[in-house]
Amino acid sequence: MSTCKPNMSDLGQSLCAMAEQLIALENRLKTLEKGKTKVALSALIETGGAYGPFDKDVTLAYNKVYTNIGDAYNSCTGIFTAPVTGVYYFTFFYHAGGKHASKLELFKNCEMIVRSSDHKSGCDGADNGGNAAVLQLQQGDQVYVRMPAHHHVWATSISTSFSGFLLS
Amino acid sequence: MSTCKPNMSDLGQSLCAMAEQLIALENRLKTLEKGKTKVALSALIETGGAYGPFDKDVTLAYNKVYTNIGDAYNSCTGIFTAPVTGVYYFTFFYHAGGKHASKLELFKNCEMIVRSSDHKSGCDGADNGGNAAVLQLQQGDQVYVRMPAHHHVWATSISTSFSGFLLS
Amino acid sequence: MSTCKPNMSDLGQSLCAMAEQLIALENRLKTLEKGKTKVALSALIETGGAYGPFDKDVTLAYNKVYTNIGDAYNSCTGIFTAPVTGVYYFTFFYHAGGKHASKLELFKNCEMIVRSSDHKSGCDGADNGGNAAVLQLQQGDQVYVRMPAHHHVWATSISTSFSGFLLS
Repeated sequence: MSTCKPNMSDLGQSLCAMAEQLIALENRLKTLEKGKTKVALSALIETGGAYGPFDKDVTLAYNKVYTNIGDAYNSCTGIFTAPVTGVYYFTFFYHAGGKHASKLELFKNCEMIVRSSDHKSGCDGADNGGNAAVLQLQQGDQVYVRMPAHHHVWATSISTSFSGFLLS
Repeated sequence: MSTCKPNMSDLGQSLCAMAEQLIALENRLKTLEKGKTKVALSALIETGGAYGPFDKDVTLAYNKVYTNIGDAYNSCTGIFTAPVTGVYYFTFFYHAGGKHASKLELFKNCEMIVRSSDHKSGCDGADNGGNAAVLQLQQGDQVYVRMPAHHHVWATSISTSFSGFLLS
Repeated sequence: MSTCKPNMSDLGQSLCAMAEQLIALENRLKTLEKGKTKVALSALIETGGAYGPFDKDVTLAYNKVYTNIGDAYNSCTGIFTAPVTGVYYFTFFYHAGGKHASKLELFKNCEMIVRSSDHKSGCDGADNGGNAAVLQLQQGDQVYVRMPAHHHVWATSISTSFSGFLLS
């Protein structure tokens, strides 16, 4: 059945070629075994009370970091920078008081992607919000959560969070 | 130590057998390198204001599509059709006014899976909701978000979203 | 170009060595083909109405289970036990009435990770909340959702859910 016709006069050379193929296969296997780059983020903003309202937009620097695999998230700036091109999932949740309006916006570079907000309310003492998106990012793209001027969220009680990860 | 006893009289045939094994291994490696099918969806419904209330149930056709890897989501119908059997994650978020009740329901085929809702409220000007589920889908299973009659959500301000992806 | 110098007097032995390498490669390939352990959970708590308030903290035993791949979640206790060390995503959502305060807290072992809550409200008839986290778990780590004493959630209408999965 086999169509293989070894040159009996050159068995040594055939063996060498196969040894090289074996090494090449093993290297490809090693790459697969290492797996895809892992990237994952989970952090809270905890400043000890209401955060805002401020008179200008701010990027939320979630400072209590649970998970930062791949070091893609900078807790000083609040900015996640994609270490590899790929498809990522991001989600954020917030808690806020009713005394001021609340609003958070997820950005990819300069593009606003999804938002969650609630009105000021005289009677409802608290508001919750959140949103999520799956984004195709190029290496170096930046993702972050902004709070527009004159809005606030609650930055205590482990309730205002930002999470994300690379889909494989 | 080796239990290998090559037939010295038939080295050529042994070599041929090994060459065939190498090709078979490489083909399996290629399949792994290609990776699993990627499926991911992220979209908003943006119609320019309140969506509903209507006098009948409607499937939300999220029309501002950020991500539709694998073309599993149809933005005309709002229906996601699983391109491969597997385990998927879905989540939706909405914003709504307080003037009418709000309610969204995630369906798998004809089964209602999870819901999020809020009452009409004279005093609380806005409501937020969302939910999520991990679902085992067969190829062809359909997942979508329904809004029951006499409810509404806010379909503006990038606040009402539907996202999902295949877990690997 | 090739640096391979086969010992022509010992072709049989070279062949044996390569046959062993082929078997080793194939075994590594099989491990990769099996893929990573799959772990995923999705469940609702459905007890037929308001759940709580109680006079002590309770772990929510989400009893309507949609997905429990890897059998990591125990619906009697409400506890998810990591079957393998890895990075996991968890999210929960709830609906509650306005008559009592609502609060849920995601725990990793004894550490409270994220929370969502809302006040009692005379005027706003219903509240929604949720949160999420990416957690690095050791095999055996436990993750669950607690409701503190004197709070409640709505455990009907498929609205109070707990989902999670192992990131690959």
